Amino acid sequence: MTSPDGAKPRLYFEDLHAGQRFTGSAACTVSEAEIKAFAAEFDPQPFHLDAEAGRSTVFGGLVASGWHTAALTMRLILQGGPALAGGSVGLGAELDWLKPVKPGDTLRVQGEVLTTTPSRSRPDRGRVTMRVETCNQHGDVVQVCISKILVPRRPASHDA
Amino acid sequence: MTSPDGAKPRLYFEDLHAGQRFTGSAACTVSEAEIKAFAAEFDPQPFHLDAEAGRSTVFGGLVASGWHTAALTMRLILQGGPALAGGSVGLGAELDWLKPVKPGDTLRVQGEVLTTTPSRSRPDRGRVTMRVETCNQHGDVVQVCISKILVPRRPASHDA
Repeated sequence: MTSPDGAKPRLYFEDLHAGQRFTGSAACTVSEAEIKAFAAEFDPQPFHLDAEAGRSTVFGGLVASGWHTAALTMRLILQGGPALAGGSVGLGAELDWLKPVKPGDTLRVQGEVLTTTPSRSRPDRGRVTMRVETCNQHGDVVQVCISKILVPRRPASHDA
Repeated sequence: MTSPDGAKPRLYFEDLHAGQRFTGSAACTVSEAEIKAFAAEFDPQPFHLDAEAGRSTVFGGLVASGWHTAALTMRLILQGGPALAGGSVGLGAELDWLKPVKPGDTLRVQGEVLTTTPSRSRPDRGRVTMRVETCNQHGDVVQVCISKILVPRRPASHDA
């Protein structure tokens, strides 16, 4: 996914097709401190804030907020996923949290284009749905995200 | 939603039914600094980091990451929504970002229970889907989130 000068080519709507896969993402390891800091700001529940308090809950310990996993996934997509022309402009997303993310877990992402749909009303853009799996160091899928993204079409004057 | 002593009652699966609404949430105003800080950590794209750089994009200026809106929505739900027994344990969510969130916007949430489904395999719990709208100070819905939540059933020994 890199061009000869090392910069990723910017992908337009025309460059994407169903079945196209993106692998080899960056990795990020989630620390206990990061889990607690995110939770304190956005999702202050016992099982996201304190290992001891989490022990008596359905999780049995400290786990990351699903919204934290989603936000980290976004960062990993930007770091290692396709570089979309116009940026990664999300219209929506469908998330499934399959396994908890625990302190020390290392996350990676892999993606696949599901559909590409030209806009009927706006000839300069299209909508792409992409399935992104977030995996931990054991290869378990912790989150599946199907995201709807707005992608510009290649301008007529633009050669490749 | 408050009991005589001012504490919210903890709601079990049996206390929730389709059509039940939750209103009167807390409010939060999103600052430019918060938008940039969240973006720097999780969604470092020009239109989330810098007003000038955002001007030439589809947004025409600085806007909050959709993941930031989702995370703030979670906090508002915890601050003003139903206090679920066992906490708000999300299994998944479906997000639609309808309008951008801009610096200085004030967000509130309102929710409605869509479905309640007892678990077939686990008699101690059920699944609840809830539609949560996040609105700005103009009354525009900026995000719709349909979340799937795990809610414990009331223990047989538990009166009330």
